[in-house]
Amino acid sequence: MADQSPAFPSAAARRALGRQVYEQVMLTEAPSDDSPFAGAGLLDFVFAEVWSRPGLSRRDRRFVTLACVAAADTVRPIQEHVYAALKSGDVTYDELTEAVLHFAVYCGWPKGSFFAQTATEQWERIHAERGEPVPPPTPTLPLTTASDPELRLQGGEAAFKSINELEFAVPRDHPYYGAGILNFVFGEMWQRPGLGLRERRLVTLACVALDDTEGPVRSHVYSALKSGDLSYPEMKELSLQFAAYYGWPKGSFLAQVIDEQHERIEAE
Amino acid sequence: MADQSPAFPSAAARRALGRQVYEQVMLTEAPSDDSPFAGAGLLDFVFAEVWSRPGLSRRDRRFVTLACVAAADTVRPIQEHVYAALKSGDVTYDELTEAVLHFAVYCGWPKGSFFAQTATEQWERIHAERGEPVPPPTPTLPLTTASDPELRLQGGEAAFKSINELEFAVPRDHPYYGAGILNFVFGEMWQRPGLGLRERRLVTLACVALDDTEGPVRSHVYSALKSGDLSYPEMKELSLQFAAYYGWPKGSFLAQVIDEQHERIEAE
Amino acid sequence: MADQSPAFPSAAARRALGRQVYEQVMLTEAPSDDSPFAGAGLLDFVFAEVWSRPGLSRRDRRFVTLACVAAADTVRPIQEHVYAALKSGDVTYDELTEAVLHFAVYCGWPKGSFFAQTATEQWERIHAERGEPVPPPTPTLPLTTASDPELRLQGGEAAFKSINELEFAVPRDHPYYGAGILNFVFGEMWQRPGLGLRERRLVTLACVALDDTEGPVRSHVYSALKSGDLSYPEMKELSLQFAAYYGWPKGSFLAQVIDEQHERIEAE
Repeated sequence: MADQSPAFPSAAARRALGRQVYEQVMLTEAPSDDSPFAGAGLLDFVFAEVWSRPGLSRRDRRFVTLACVAAADTVRPIQEHVYAALKSGDVTYDELTEAVLHFAVYCGWPKGSFFAQTATEQWERIHAERGEPVPPPTPTLPLTTASDPELRLQGGEAAFKSINELEFAVPRDHPYYGAGILNFVFGEMWQRPGLGLRERRLVTLACVALDDTEGPVRSHVYSALKSGDLSYPEMKELSLQFAAYYGWPKGSFLAQVIDEQHERIEAE
Repeated sequence: MADQSPAFPSAAARRALGRQVYEQVMLTEAPSDDSPFAGAGLLDFVFAEVWSRPGLSRRDRRFVTLACVAAADTVRPIQEHVYAALKSGDVTYDELTEAVLHFAVYCGWPKGSFFAQTATEQWERIHAERGEPVPPPTPTLPLTTASDPELRLQGGEAAFKSINELEFAVPRDHPYYGAGILNFVFGEMWQRPGLGLRERRLVTLACVALDDTEGPVRSHVYSALKSGDLSYPEMKELSLQFAAYYGWPKGSFLAQVIDEQHERIEAE
Repeated sequence: MADQSPAFPSAAARRALGRQVYEQVMLTEAPSDDSPFAGAGLLDFVFAEVWSRPGLSRRDRRFVTLACVAAADTVRPIQEHVYAALKSGDVTYDELTEAVLHFAVYCGWPKGSFFAQTATEQWERIHAERGEPVPPPTPTLPLTTASDPELRLQGGEAAFKSINELEFAVPRDHPYYGAGILNFVFGEMWQRPGLGLRERRLVTLACVALDDTEGPVRSHVYSALKSGDLSYPEMKELSLQFAAYYGWPKGSFLAQVIDEQHERIEAE
């Protein structure tokens, strides 16, 4: 069935909707529309037609978008989207900082660094606007996962299989797989209580899609669909949100893999 | 003055235009529109509304887009855009291969590698489709720039100042600036005859925008405008084409710098 | 044999080791641990468990990490890692600036630009802290490679074959291969005396892995192993350091290729 774009009574009505959705999502005034980028692009398409779509909640779209702006590594969009995510209440501060950790693991610590700093700064800004003190941060310790390295590896193997919907885990005897993937990424990080599995999948899907490494794109699209954490229509909607924020070339591969993996699961 | 999006008599008319423009630009059949990515995104926006705009020629849009897909490093979009650029006659083979070199310098040799290989393959594919032999390649030698290292540096300094619209060049005694920027990038590469300065600027602007490093974005936007090789309205149009292919966060910084540097030049 | 993570008597002991290793590596005070990013991520994993590992020297880890932070293009991490690399004496200034050139060639001049500027600034900062004058830079000229374009191409072809462990070189008559790869990248850059081949390989491996282009990842992993410049255990360790700094999806492909190419070489 063909996907539908909205019909607008006029170009002015579309622009007006773009402004309205921009202000609902970003919680600041819409920008001037005197350039193709801001007018035809940002307002008429990204806000009037993408953010306004059903099929994925605004909260879901935020996790995808936050990962994209953090990876794009552009100062203002990171600040604006972090501000809007927190200020709207769509994402709590603990969820956001947990998403920063998840993002840093998937896109590296250097990009995580500015994202982490921005989370703190925008949280302070929101409290300053409200004239309220910033609440004390949630302590990092204790961890909820095992300290014993053997138990951590075992927990990592179990989580790896469960989260990736696989019968087997990667081998232990390799620094990348053992000390990295099993010991930390699945042995600790994915098991942290601060962020739900659906939200972790949204961040991960954006990260693997923007990294555009074939194996991880395939495996995370498969497990997101197979687990039922995201439905096929939601995943297709996600590929549009992602493409808007990270471009059509990478969106194209993600969209292709979503169809492929959906067919694979249907056939299982 | 507000930028205008087109008004369509119906959503179906918009979709139909998207298919038509897709086929004119890509020279292959438009994809099925049964997903948000392909329907609401690719056909209704990227083709019906971006590629169909005036303000920048299809040839100009191709150089920006080729740099974006090469950087995004996704197999099919690179193949499809290289094929379409050559097959349409918008870009000659010598211009394309020269653009590959320019791209590789700005986005690195690893990404240039697949782009270079694809140029050869698609050129062969087009000749196979036509039942014609592939013409012999243009020889690399002789180079048109000086061989003597001191003269190359001098030529690099002159080209650096002229192309960047600056009164000074970077210092020689630093491997990055001396052996790299002056000796090769400006001492040879920018001076090669196979590609015009306007086209080199289009590729460069896409590359610095997708890298999103502040200094180079500012300096290349400034010199593109200052030289008159690209007008302010053309640059604004370019930021939309770029954002569609590399996402809104990076497009946002490019759009901002275009306005800033335009104001700076107006004030000079 | 299973890869082992360290056993810690307590989560607090692990955090304390993270702080200690952070301060040994970064030569500045460890950050507050009041966020998941800084606590569970940076201190507990990146420093307590990755930088503290044997298998690759701290100097080796620095070349990999410098390439990752320069590519991620985030201001503070670049400044901090350049400072620490120079201040520790692990990397000399001439090695660092040569690594900047090598990085710029592999990841593009725009990203090289800030890295180059940071090298100069942090070198000045270290001398200011010591109350010493900054020594004059090493002159760019004379180059040690041939000036004549034909001889440069010949030298480039020989270096291409030797460094890549191949029997053949790429064709000359293509701007990317001829004017780029043979004339400059292998005809000059790889042959420069300021940085050892092992260090150039570390930078290159990080760059191709973060670009994640299949062909170059395969060829540079192969030649690093085949040449003996890096052993198989060292390469596996490198994939962990890389994954921590550029994320697991890209690390995944690197780890896979290391195993593949190791098997290929064993079979040769």
